[in-house]
Amino acid sequence: MKIHIINPNSTASMTEKIGEAARAVAAPGTAILATNPQGTPASIEGHADEAAAVPPLLREIIEGTEAGADAFVLACFDDPGLFACREVTDRPVVGICEAAMMAASILAVRFSVVTTLPRSIPIIEDLADRYGHTRRCRRVRSAAIPVLALEEDGDNAAALVRAEVLAAIREDGVDAVILGCAGMADLAATLSAETGIPILDGVAAATKLAEALAGCGYTTSKAGAYAYPLDK
Amino acid sequence: MKIHIINPNSTASMTEKIGEAARAVAAPGTAILATNPQGTPASIEGHADEAAAVPPLLREIIEGTEAGADAFVLACFDDPGLFACREVTDRPVVGICEAAMMAASILAVRFSVVTTLPRSIPIIEDLADRYGHTRRCRRVRSAAIPVLALEEDGDNAAALVRAEVLAAIREDGVDAVILGCAGMADLAATLSAETGIPILDGVAAATKLAEALAGCGYTTSKAGAYAYPLDK
Amino acid sequence: MKIHIINPNSTASMTEKIGEAARAVAAPGTAILATNPQGTPASIEGHADEAAAVPPLLREIIEGTEAGADAFVLACFDDPGLFACREVTDRPVVGICEAAMMAASILAVRFSVVTTLPRSIPIIEDLADRYGHTRRCRRVRSAAIPVLALEEDGDNAAALVRAEVLAAIREDGVDAVILGCAGMADLAATLSAETGIPILDGVAAATKLAEALAGCGYTTSKAGAYAYPLDK
Amino acid sequence: MKIHIINPNSTASMTEKIGEAARAVAAPGTAILATNPQGTPASIEGHADEAAAVPPLLREIIEGTEAGADAFVLACFDDPGLFACREVTDRPVVGICEAAMMAASILAVRFSVVTTLPRSIPIIEDLADRYGHTRRCRRVRSAAIPVLALEEDGDNAAALVRAEVLAAIREDGVDAVILGCAGMADLAATLSAETGIPILDGVAAATKLAEALAGCGYTTSKAGAYAYPLDK
Amino acid sequence: MKIHIINPNSTASMTEKIGEAARAVAAPGTAILATNPQGTPASIEGHADEAAAVPPLLREIIEGTEAGADAFVLACFDDPGLFACREVTDRPVVGICEAAMMAASILAVRFSVVTTLPRSIPIIEDLADRYGHTRRCRRVRSAAIPVLALEEDGDNAAALVRAEVLAAIREDGVDAVILGCAGMADLAATLSAETGIPILDGVAAATKLAEALAGCGYTTSKAGAYAYPLDK
Amino acid sequence: MKIHIINPNSTASMTEKIGEAARAVAAPGTAILATNPQGTPASIEGHADEAAAVPPLLREIIEGTEAGADAFVLACFDDPGLFACREVTDRPVVGICEAAMMAASILAVRFSVVTTLPRSIPIIEDLADRYGHTRRCRRVRSAAIPVLALEEDGDNAAALVRAEVLAAIREDGVDAVILGCAGMADLAATLSAETGIPILDGVAAATKLAEALAGCGYTTSKAGAYAYPLDK
Repeated sequence: MKIHIINPNSTASMTEKIGEAARAVAAPGTAILATNPQGTPASIEGHADEAAAVPPLLREIIEGTEAGADAFVLACFDDPGLFACREVTDRPVVGICEAAMMAASILAVRFSVVTTLPRSIPIIEDLADRYGHTRRCRRVRSAAIPVLALEEDGDNAAALVRAEVLAAIREDGVDAVILGCAGMADLAATLSAETGIPILDGVAAATKLAEALAGCGYTTSKAGAYAYPLDK
Repeated sequence: MKIHIINPNSTASMTEKIGEAARAVAAPGTAILATNPQGTPASIEGHADEAAAVPPLLREIIEGTEAGADAFVLACFDDPGLFACREVTDRPVVGICEAAMMAASILAVRFSVVTTLPRSIPIIEDLADRYGHTRRCRRVRSAAIPVLALEEDGDNAAALVRAEVLAAIREDGVDAVILGCAGMADLAATLSAETGIPILDGVAAATKLAEALAGCGYTTSKAGAYAYPLDK
Repeated sequence: MKIHIINPNSTASMTEKIGEAARAVAAPGTAILATNPQGTPASIEGHADEAAAVPPLLREIIEGTEAGADAFVLACFDDPGLFACREVTDRPVVGICEAAMMAASILAVRFSVVTTLPRSIPIIEDLADRYGHTRRCRRVRSAAIPVLALEEDGDNAAALVRAEVLAAIREDGVDAVILGCAGMADLAATLSAETGIPILDGVAAATKLAEALAGCGYTTSKAGAYAYPLDK
Repeated sequence: MKIHIINPNSTASMTEKIGEAARAVAAPGTAILATNPQGTPASIEGHADEAAAVPPLLREIIEGTEAGADAFVLACFDDPGLFACREVTDRPVVGICEAAMMAASILAVRFSVVTTLPRSIPIIEDLADRYGHTRRCRRVRSAAIPVLALEEDGDNAAALVRAEVLAAIREDGVDAVILGCAGMADLAATLSAETGIPILDGVAAATKLAEALAGCGYTTSKAGAYAYPLDK
Repeated sequence: MKIHIINPNSTASMTEKIGEAARAVAAPGTAILATNPQGTPASIEGHADEAAAVPPLLREIIEGTEAGADAFVLACFDDPGLFACREVTDRPVVGICEAAMMAASILAVRFSVVTTLPRSIPIIEDLADRYGHTRRCRRVRSAAIPVLALEEDGDNAAALVRAEVLAAIREDGVDAVILGCAGMADLAATLSAETGIPILDGVAAATKLAEALAGCGYTTSKAGAYAYPLDK
Repeated sequence: MKIHIINPNSTASMTEKIGEAARAVAAPGTAILATNPQGTPASIEGHADEAAAVPPLLREIIEGTEAGADAFVLACFDDPGLFACREVTDRPVVGICEAAMMAASILAVRFSVVTTLPRSIPIIEDLADRYGHTRRCRRVRSAAIPVLALEEDGDNAAALVRAEVLAAIREDGVDAVILGCAGMADLAATLSAETGIPILDGVAAATKLAEALAGCGYTTSKAGAYAYPLDK
């Protein structure tokens, strides 16, 4: 089975980290392909960055489908263009925010999210509502760091994320915390070990969920709003 | 005052029709500029079409801001990229779905929407939820016509839209109907006259709402998720 | 065009202030008529005050319609009797809470409201729910002042409102604040200038929205629950 | 114990019928006082009728409190002015729509409502939402009869109500039906017997609920929005 | 009339306390039977405890029906097995969480709940949602005491409950507080007297509500999901 | 990896069918253990049947954990006792309704459910709400067959299920249909092939989801409401 993971921003070091996080959980027979499009923003921080990333992302999905991917993971926590991705392929496409919230809703009764910048808070709140987790998602928090700080100033960024995760556990009445950025994928294991509760990274969750859906032989429905785009 | 109306698809005849609908309601001192970007899909029917249209749309907003627009109208009923538009300008940006639903919620207690293709039904249902009209919006219906049929085969398309509007009045228990496509802007007056109830076109509603917001001196807040995109 | 703004309480100084706020934003061709009924409470602080104000308010609407008003603004932030007003006229009727929340939902992603007395908090929360802003409205706050303090002890009241607006910005994660009383209409401009974010007054928002709806030629639907009251 | 039931319209024959329905279920030691204010509409069909009825209704509540009522029932299915009633007394006040929906939510999993005129449908839908029964209330139906037809043309009206109740059972997937008008109180027993499922009349439900609350020694909280109106 | 109150745990001292709370409010002609099943957990603290208690509880309901109970009260604040209870009898069955929230929603505009252990918080939040009180229920708090501490270490437990009730009044903006455990039934009167606002105990509320429903002659509908279990 | 699938009813032929459905999708290295407790109802049709099944189910979970299961699937579409299961083990526990709705929400925009008896309709509607699929789940339908008819009269039952699936596609505007009973697991492939849209069986979906969660190394959080039951 081949799972194609697309980091919609153009920062290769983040793509590499995402690929590693996926490979760490992939089943023996699963090949992980982690790519990023060219020409998209170096990080996705807000709606305009999302908008710039989606057209190249869709081309990546189309080419990936032709190249035989069995399922796709969209590796940006805003799940940008997720529904559009589902139009251009019949393979399952899983967003990392979507997958992390699904996993959290099975493993825990209440969760918080720790993301990068404050401007992403309402975006993720809206996703929680859209995916049906309004009650389960207690709070979306920000560690007040730009996405790329996770690459460039990793130790400091990790410390800030950790502090915010601990604050969530202390103040929010949650029994799980989701790391709300693909660039935090490497922090989940350590924080889970330290806190003793599930600290979820969406890349791992989405990779396994994509594997699961493809393993069921499921395909994206073409009978509704995910039908292929019409020729113009 | 200058209201810049952007039809995000690239069909000039539709842009022209939209401009006329706006001018028909604009105040004496308001200049209407109706444009469409180049290189976007000829019609927007689904999420992938939306995604393709948004980056050129954002450039149009940025240039329009530099050219002195006081407010913008996004003239596609899916309100594609609406939140991204608000990031790249500090002028108010109004979507036509958003505006039509606001107007309907003041003029009537319950409304239905008649759109073009069935694939747009869940998109508009999701917008109704997001804008807070879950209860007020009784039903989203489709006239089962492609968007461009409104241009190319106008009489037949108009007949199909009219039939669906009458069905909504007969079956849905509504006291207003929204026409769910910018390309239907010219049908609202006739249908209102025939049915005796508000049949709302989003272009008119959004134009006046944009005029109203600019007239209050309001600007888009830059203190939250609509802050300008960060430099990369 | 003639916009008739009705302050449902009987405090003439507040009516005057409301009229000024409306005139400050009205289009050149718009005449603003600001009135208040006789015999209603001097201020509206709770459901019983609302109930006492509505019958005279409805008579004001009926007479205003006969006198040729093109649209009405209901200038009390509880929007008392708003749906009843819509029954007795076919002109658009806009509530100031309704209008302020609509404007805020376009200009910002999250907002708080600062009102007068704590007893109004759940009333305004219920309105936010009814109008569909449950998620967007982060918090309704009270400055703990009676409505008439805004008239009688203006400087002190303004200071308390300002303090609560600043608290909202600091604590609520909002990018706009709504002033939740018609008597605060004169504070919006100063507070917007000071804070750099939209501080919205419902009188201005509703006046322009009423102008917009009348300018579209829209009328209140008489085909549903806003039909004229039946003769008894 | 004394339960004071107020029919807010001024039709004495309906008040009498309501009083009988209440007495039929009252406990041995409970005195039922059924009154109606003077000068209110002969029937309450819409928001403007509600508005006209509420101020006299509030005076009735105030006088009833002074006269020693232990609890009040508001006997109009729109529950007009319910929250205002709670401000002017510290005795429990129960609305008949509120009580019928509470009872139905205990006795059945899903219910429909059959009311008089279509214009009341959205009013009752909004009450169902406000009271928290959005999912449980499958549908609000209208028998398409004016309220007073229940008095003046009782047999025909009863036949129309019965037909709509049977339609609800056949089509809505409900296991209970609520009669959505105080004037239908006399129909509940027969229809329950005929259909074998709970057909609920709000007058009976509210009378017993008021008795229950007063029997617990409960009073309306004066610490929040139901505090007494402020002196002006 | 005979009201059968079932404490689903097996702690007889709690059953006795519950019986007393019910008798304190029962009407003169009402006989209160308070029982608990054998072999259930000594206290119900979480879903697994609930699951263990329900089958014996259902047998108690069946036997109680045969013994002529007119209505049942389920006296555990988690309302465990409430819907199952309604399947095995045609007498009304009222849960104490359900009843307390209904009463609070009539007497006050906003309420908080004070329960025993933190693990019950999301259970009660989910009940508030299910019963339709999402907005009215401001917060579910825990006094951080095991259920049996209310029996074994009553004074200390009462002090902790009192402290949390006072915190709710101070911090949550509520005008009523619900005691979220049947074992707190004896604390309601004192706390109401001290605070001057309704402090509600579900046992009293449910007893009177059960009396009210039975007094109306209502029975549980057997036409839907509360039909008798099928023979296997 | 070992996935333990528990059919909570006591019908061995159904357990066998469920085991086959799971094995058909399990990864090469995954061992599937399908069991059912003794002494539970032969089929689960309603809340009382659920209640009877849960205590033996919990013992099965506890023993399965001791025997080294890596994750559990609860193979009854009502997901009975799901939260209690999560208390008694630290391995992930996935319900088949939960999993099917998650999968459908990724593969399609709108889905309907076809279950066995009408009495299960509100149960499944409530699950859809609880899991956050209120908008996505268009309708829950019943094929009007008892659960065991799927075993005893398979061909006829399959025809009735097929007819209802086709009705859902024709009438509900959905692009996926979920089979709402573990006993329908063998029908999914044929119906998917016939209709060309995803017809989802919860057993397959839950098996792969359980595999995915265990494959991530996730465990059920013991820091909140899923903590182990307290000793009594």
